[in-house]
Amino acid sequence: MNAEAVLMSLSLLVSFLYRDGCALSFLIPIALLLLIGVFLIRRKPENTVIFAREGFVIVSGAWIVVSLFGALPFFISGQIPNYIDAVFEIVSGFTTTGASILTRVEDLSWSLLFWRSFTHWVGGMGVLVFVMAIIPLAGARSVYLMRAESPGPSVGKLVPKMRSTAMILYGIYILLTLLEVILLKFSGMPLFDCLVNSFGSVGTGGFAIKTESIAYYDSAYVDIVITVFMILCGTNFNLFYLLLTGHVLQVLKSEELRWYLGIILVSTLAITYDILSMYENIAQALRYAVFQVSSIITTTGFATADFNLWPPLSRTILVVLMVLGACAGSTGGGLKTARLVLLLKSIVRDTRKALHPRSFSVIQYEGKPVDEATVSGVGSYFALYMVIAVLSILLVSINEFDFTTTVTAVLSCFNNVGPGLEVVGPLGSYADFNAFSKIILTINMLMGRLEIIPMIMLASPGVWRRSKAKRRLL
Amino acid sequence: MNAEAVLMSLSLLVSFLYRDGCALSFLIPIALLLLIGVFLIRRKPENTVIFAREGFVIVSGAWIVVSLFGALPFFISGQIPNYIDAVFEIVSGFTTTGASILTRVEDLSWSLLFWRSFTHWVGGMGVLVFVMAIIPLAGARSVYLMRAESPGPSVGKLVPKMRSTAMILYGIYILLTLLEVILLKFSGMPLFDCLVNSFGSVGTGGFAIKTESIAYYDSAYVDIVITVFMILCGTNFNLFYLLLTGHVLQVLKSEELRWYLGIILVSTLAITYDILSMYENIAQALRYAVFQVSSIITTTGFATADFNLWPPLSRTILVVLMVLGACAGSTGGGLKTARLVLLLKSIVRDTRKALHPRSFSVIQYEGKPVDEATVSGVGSYFALYMVIAVLSILLVSINEFDFTTTVTAVLSCFNNVGPGLEVVGPLGSYADFNAFSKIILTINMLMGRLEIIPMIMLASPGVWRRSKAKRRLL
Repeated sequence: MNAEAVLMSLSLLVSFLYRDGCALSFLIPIALLLLIGVFLIRRKPENTVIFAREGFVIVSGAWIVVSLFGALPFFISGQIPNYIDAVFEIVSGFTTTGASILTRVEDLSWSLLFWRSFTHWVGGMGVLVFVMAIIPLAGARSVYLMRAESPGPSVGKLVPKMRSTAMILYGIYILLTLLEVILLKFSGMPLFDCLVNSFGSVGTGGFAIKTESIAYYDSAYVDIVITVFMILCGTNFNLFYLLLTGHVLQVLKSEELRWYLGIILVSTLAITYDILSMYENIAQALRYAVFQVSSIITTTGFATADFNLWPPLSRTILVVLMVLGACAGSTGGGLKTARLVLLLKSIVRDTRKALHPRSFSVIQYEGKPVDEATVSGVGSYFALYMVIAVLSILLVSINEFDFTTTVTAVLSCFNNVGPGLEVVGPLGSYADFNAFSKIILTINMLMGRLEIIPMIMLASPGVWRRSKAKRRLL
Repeated sequence: MNAEAVLMSLSLLVSFLYRDGCALSFLIPIALLLLIGVFLIRRKPENTVIFAREGFVIVSGAWIVVSLFGALPFFISGQIPNYIDAVFEIVSGFTTTGASILTRVEDLSWSLLFWRSFTHWVGGMGVLVFVMAIIPLAGARSVYLMRAESPGPSVGKLVPKMRSTAMILYGIYILLTLLEVILLKFSGMPLFDCLVNSFGSVGTGGFAIKTESIAYYDSAYVDIVITVFMILCGTNFNLFYLLLTGHVLQVLKSEELRWYLGIILVSTLAITYDILSMYENIAQALRYAVFQVSSIITTTGFATADFNLWPPLSRTILVVLMVLGACAGSTGGGLKTARLVLLLKSIVRDTRKALHPRSFSVIQYEGKPVDEATVSGVGSYFALYMVIAVLSILLVSINEFDFTTTVTAVLSCFNNVGPGLEVVGPLGSYADFNAFSKIILTINMLMGRLEIIPMIMLASPGVWRRSKAKRRLL
């Protein structure tokens, strides 16, 4: 909470710089946060040992508390008068989704725009640490552990190692952000825009400060810079570490990276072909196609074209990319390339088994055999993912939007993308959903971000009962 | 092939009875079938031992050959002038899908209408024998074997037992059909209509002989009779055998049956509530809701109301039911209730494992422990199912229909339902799809019907090379 107060102070600074009259909206929550934060720090915890379960509960609880407070500046300033809307917007920020209930982004004050985009950057950082340092605490069954034996920063099983892992990740993350800001500045973009757009792309969030998103700048150079950074931030951050330590060959050999780039390439070519007739020449079509593919697969959600108007094939490809998502160990959301590869491999293995009943084979991934528990874990994660998606679609369809809007809204929020199709298209917004749907979609964003299980833990009475029982024992 | 000639002769008889001038359209294929059939019988096979793999290849090959010949009457008569359309229509018949490329069904001659619906009945029979007697040959990993140790007819591991299994299934099947014909006759429906509608519901097919489907009769009695028979034919046929042998208690204890009826009940209530404002009173709403829910979950596809016009929640529920499908061991298609239950149980187990890492539990189903191979088999079947569905949706979306139409058309064909939403709604048809989409959808119908794996085997070059190698050895 103290940390959030500090982070929010940055927005306060912006507010003073631009004199937009929102200073009070930030001061009140900052004061509140500091008050509670200092109070909590004074209370010494009875037990400082953190198990995986407690870790999960703390993380998901923290995410929710931070969002509830983070929404206050919007609410107090009156620029998002409905508190549920404000929470939706800020959860969308912290979870790096980028789905907005605003119909005209430009109406927000500078400081609120800054705070909104800044949450992407903070959220992306939080996710990196979460998946690289906290999930491994839970034990072996995780796709993020695939390269655990390689000299990457993902080992982090001990607390000191966890801290150094986090520092390395932060370093890479900040470096990428600075690099993007500098490169964008070359285009003549105002510094404020450079900053917020870099936050949006490095955090794979997708909040833009213009209603037309990145299309507003209408510059091929800007498109290319942002495309490159989106693709970079959708890769496994382990790979950057490997690059920095000179293991270039190992990076090139990465199976996940090859699949990820392969999917981007194939989708871009298919969409370029599909939209060719809509644009002047093949270069134009390619530029818009590669931007949109990168934006959606990395679950960023920036737009340079209204893909709502693209032909059905392109739209369907984009919906599929939403679900696939970026690489494991990146700031992106979705199912993750690593899971897709493992799912496909287990399908091939089981189909071969049906053909040759006596055959036996172990699935290999990144050059190493994968144990059966991980494979079946990925399978049941996928099933759980589908069940939650279907239930959410059913609940949101009470809202009487058309099938395409409902389905893509849920998929987009659940995978932390941002825009969907039809009403929630790149130029649309989530403003017209009712409060119930907004709450469901907010939960979807959190679930997608925290890989479902921690959120279920938070809602599971067993976890709370257990810890009470433990307290009694002490 | 000889068998198909005999079956087609029945339609020839109808043609003579109604003097509709289609006799020649049946005579030519019958002659062709007999010619090839007799020729093939004369060739003595070198090897009469049939392994699971050969069994699968024979079944899927047979399904295709029968369809290619079965389409000839439509094509020769000129009433479906395009051969691809004719194949689509007849595959839709044999796979008990009920998707039609006809915009006005009434234009077909009597004998062709009869042949079309008769294929549902034959197809349903073929599926029953396939899932009950042939799949078990492949070994243990099948959801159909759940009750194998119970005194049901599904044991069938030996050829003589397989024959008796088939005879018992045929008996139950014919009995159900006769019962429905008699009950429908009481409503004053013409005998011809009674027959084809019974074929459609007992085979869970859904071809009607009126464009308005069952809505044409506009009789609550007819609706109720067909609803009951659809629900009956969507249950596991083992249960009928258990009932006949007096094991009533075991039937009532069936976990799959309870889930199946539970899903029907919940969906019906939700839809009734949702469509209440569209109908005069609650009884009317309930009548249409329960008919449509039963029709879709059993993958029949009959309609008494244009559910295209229902509110989004009801439409979404119906799409979800399409995918769920009926019970394992029934004539229905879809994912099957047994798989859904196993998937949900494995999700619960794995989530609990994340909460309590040291816990260990074996999944129980129908009161017996399920081995891990079956659980992971269901998981990878589901993943394979989703991959094929997504690929098909991508391929069909080249056809430039809206997202809802494309998605529901693929899901409807893949799950052997029939109608979808929008263009392919209950009053619509598949007429406007291009040839490429129709071929993809035809393959979907076959894949859905044969549980995917046999179709992949047929396309797998390894299977053919192997048998050639074997031939050289002989």
